[in-house]
Amino acid sequence: MEALKKKILEKGIVVDEHTLKVDSFLNHQLDTSLISSMAEELIRRFAGTPVHRILTIESSGIPLAFMMGYFLHIPVVFAKKTKPSTFTSSLYSAESYSFTRKSPYTMSVSRDFLPRGEEVLIVDDFLAGGNAVSALIEIIRKADSRPAGVAIAVEKGFQGGGDSLREAGIHVESLAIIESLANGVIQFRT
Amino acid sequence: MEALKKKILEKGIVVDEHTLKVDSFLNHQLDTSLISSMAEELIRRFAGTPVHRILTIESSGIPLAFMMGYFLHIPVVFAKKTKPSTFTSSLYSAESYSFTRKSPYTMSVSRDFLPRGEEVLIVDDFLAGGNAVSALIEIIRKADSRPAGVAIAVEKGFQGGGDSLREAGIHVESLAIIESLANGVIQFRT
Repeated sequence: MEALKKKILEKGIVVDEHTLKVDSFLNHQLDTSLISSMAEELIRRFAGTPVHRILTIESSGIPLAFMMGYFLHIPVVFAKKTKPSTFTSSLYSAESYSFTRKSPYTMSVSRDFLPRGEEVLIVDDFLAGGNAVSALIEIIRKADSRPAGVAIAVEKGFQGGGDSLREAGIHVESLAIIESLANGVIQFRT
Repeated sequence: MEALKKKILEKGIVVDEHTLKVDSFLNHQLDTSLISSMAEELIRRFAGTPVHRILTIESSGIPLAFMMGYFLHIPVVFAKKTKPSTFTSSLYSAESYSFTRKSPYTMSVSRDFLPRGEEVLIVDDFLAGGNAVSALIEIIRKADSRPAGVAIAVEKGFQGGGDSLREAGIHVESLAIIESLANGVIQFRT
């Protein structure tokens, strides 16, 4: 998606060869107009795919996921990274690992909000090694539902998570795929 | 707001006299249509108030804050509860306390995303004792900006945070104010 790639080139900050900071528009300050256009573009890319529900993970996946759910008139559920004390119903959980924070974590979704037999679209802001998405797929399968696909804003192609998912037969759409951040230069996959 | 109160009566779960669970539509599974209507109603209540930017806190404030920013064509910033390793710029921080989790925490916003001299509207899903909102006000003032007001989905009136803020001269609007959860009965302030 050209508008996103342009914004990444203008506002993205290459911290090191693995790390791109996009917190001025995607995951701390939110460019509401751009994120809304991104949601529309991802909806176009999954046109023809039945989707009953969107699943994302807190926090920075929520804006894009919410806009897609708003446009599609379907519910959005966000997986939680901690188990809140007000959860009384039982949970579906899966383990993941954050390379950003260098620590493992458990993500959980209340069973009440993942009915069985649905097509569930996974949405997130970043896809790198694929740990978080794989954990969300595990949760969807535990609920006896199916992953309808994976809709991503920025994929770090050089970390291989997206390609592994595609090889496993999952429909992955990323609005911008970064091939390299070497030498401080942002290179997109063409 | 009648639609929200109706939903709270239909789907809210009174856990104990202090705790109302609304995770089936507001802060775990998201009713995208209702949250969008809530955003529109809050915008009506702040009509005439200049607002340059919306400030919320992760995670469950994000959907309502995002929709308000989307309708108003202004940026949304969410305060973070942990300091991510990819933050390189300096931060505005304030201390708060979560009664839900029974633990103190620090919330932070990058200085880059709170320019000075703005009118900043605080948005959140819940207002109880007012700790989180007070910390957000502290951050806005550290940035030499002004709190334009506080826009809330559900206020727990019996915990006093909203009224303390109003007494301090802050414009607080809550779409539903709960006066009591005693004996498992949800009573709204009239």
